[in-house]
Amino acid sequence: MSTPLYAALKKISAFVFDIDGVMTDGSLLITDEGKLLRTFHIRDGYALRRIIPTGFHLAVISGGRSDGVVKRLLDLGVSDIFMDAQDKETVLLEWMRINSIPASNLAYMGDDLLDIPAMQHAALKACPADAAQEVKTIANYISPLNGGKGCVRDLIELVLKVQNQW
Amino acid sequence: MSTPLYAALKKISAFVFDIDGVMTDGSLLITDEGKLLRTFHIRDGYALRRIIPTGFHLAVISGGRSDGVVKRLLDLGVSDIFMDAQDKETVLLEWMRINSIPASNLAYMGDDLLDIPAMQHAALKACPADAAQEVKTIANYISPLNGGKGCVRDLIELVLKVQNQW
Amino acid sequence: MSTPLYAALKKISAFVFDIDGVMTDGSLLITDEGKLLRTFHIRDGYALRRIIPTGFHLAVISGGRSDGVVKRLLDLGVSDIFMDAQDKETVLLEWMRINSIPASNLAYMGDDLLDIPAMQHAALKACPADAAQEVKTIANYISPLNGGKGCVRDLIELVLKVQNQW
Amino acid sequence: MSTPLYAALKKISAFVFDIDGVMTDGSLLITDEGKLLRTFHIRDGYALRRIIPTGFHLAVISGGRSDGVVKRLLDLGVSDIFMDAQDKETVLLEWMRINSIPASNLAYMGDDLLDIPAMQHAALKACPADAAQEVKTIANYISPLNGGKGCVRDLIELVLKVQNQW
Repeated sequence: MSTPLYAALKKISAFVFDIDGVMTDGSLLITDEGKLLRTFHIRDGYALRRIIPTGFHLAVISGGRSDGVVKRLLDLGVSDIFMDAQDKETVLLEWMRINSIPASNLAYMGDDLLDIPAMQHAALKACPADAAQEVKTIANYISPLNGGKGCVRDLIELVLKVQNQW
Repeated sequence: MSTPLYAALKKISAFVFDIDGVMTDGSLLITDEGKLLRTFHIRDGYALRRIIPTGFHLAVISGGRSDGVVKRLLDLGVSDIFMDAQDKETVLLEWMRINSIPASNLAYMGDDLLDIPAMQHAALKACPADAAQEVKTIANYISPLNGGKGCVRDLIELVLKVQNQW
Repeated sequence: MSTPLYAALKKISAFVFDIDGVMTDGSLLITDEGKLLRTFHIRDGYALRRIIPTGFHLAVISGGRSDGVVKRLLDLGVSDIFMDAQDKETVLLEWMRINSIPASNLAYMGDDLLDIPAMQHAALKACPADAAQEVKTIANYISPLNGGKGCVRDLIELVLKVQNQW
Repeated sequence: MSTPLYAALKKISAFVFDIDGVMTDGSLLITDEGKLLRTFHIRDGYALRRIIPTGFHLAVISGGRSDGVVKRLLDLGVSDIFMDAQDKETVLLEWMRINSIPASNLAYMGDDLLDIPAMQHAALKACPADAAQEVKTIANYISPLNGGKGCVRDLIELVLKVQNQW
């Protein structure tokens, strides 16, 4: 593992995740009424549950909106959930300020253009294997797993293992 | 990039997309009542939203019908939606006439035999990587991505990048 | 194309398809009430619609049961639908007798052990690329496509092209 | 086939399966109300139905909960279903005790960390091809198939073939 990445992993105390394309594979199943159903992965949920009691900060910032997803995230113990966030950077900076999280402690996983301004504020810029090219270009960690296929778990495992907490 | 394709991309001012197999992966989830649910991709939606304010013409022509899909397309800002179109060529020609769109300005993405007569009227004949062989044969742009996996976004990006609008 | 297969294709006037694993990818989405939702493919539907008016016999024989699937098949124009068929061979033989279809004219596509006794009565024994090994062993045509991914269309195209009807 | 594995297969008289990631591909489709829908595979169901009348013991132990899944498992004939099992090892040991099943007769298929303590009590420790690395490390049989893609059927077939019951 390259020394700069290893040093960054050691310091992480906060995670931010996008939903579509990160926690999901980007697919949207459209119901008859035009509602959009998302597909999550069981192992991501397991990893999210595992970090809650460890004291890590954890937020989810999404440009979309779904009551079902909010319920799922609450069930997993995620307390900071920002939906309908068109300007993710502003939401992120406010969250970092309130929780006194410096950029050096932040891991952010996103997959598309809307995530880039926010990602720039994280020491650990992570993305799934199938992220948009522009995101992969600025990432310093590209998971071997695709969105919705365990990339969230992969990032959490990576950080917790380096910190001897997995 | 071959010169003729580059020249064609420069002139595009109108997009037409098929739904099943282009905006979706071709799968149809059948409910207990026999309704058909489709699966779209989040990044295609992002790209569609992005071209609406730029002044491009945008139409969706489908041989199928789904109220949920219509709602989704309206939410994305697509205003010209033609469902249940068994004769796509006639629908397309009428739409081109009303909007004064010459063939030289049109990009059409389809995936199956029903799209071929209509596609013939577009300067840019595009299809997903997993289109029917007959469609791939006449296409002058085959996306590296499959239907429902971002091929719509890929085509829009390609055009907008050549026109320095991405 | 091997001569025996070509000769068999020339004579086909009747198709029989299994549902799960042939018309679908074998997945069963389980609802909260324990109902099972299946996933079909749009291009299979296109091919099925296309053979109805040509005079081919067409039956679907499934060991399962789903009102939604029956509605979908009726919409496609399939009239001979046998659900809950635990003994597919008996159902098939009775259907062949009533419709005066000799084995030499029959194409049967199945994917699993339950299909084998029935498949033995068809000149053209077809299966998807991901059929059970025992089925692949007795098949004389293995589609390059998986169940639910267009293998039904592939078989229909193959027969109709040899008969110059595609 | 290695001699120790072959010897273990010969003695199996009881199967235990995890649900998410084993009977399913790990995906969770989230409804508008926050309910989680799982995706099973038809061929796994066929194999489960087949072992019920043969006298094998069969249990399903899951850390999750779903009324729809319970109904599906009951329909398949599975009678020993343990949902919401956070401590799978305790549940397993109690089940083995009540049914007088020694470790030497037990096959257990799991995919994630929660399964490991329970798996340790089985002579045949099996997992899908896409199990978590820690599970693959302790498994003595890794199916060539992924979770939800037929790995349950694969394990059952393997055991029944060695015992000349397939």
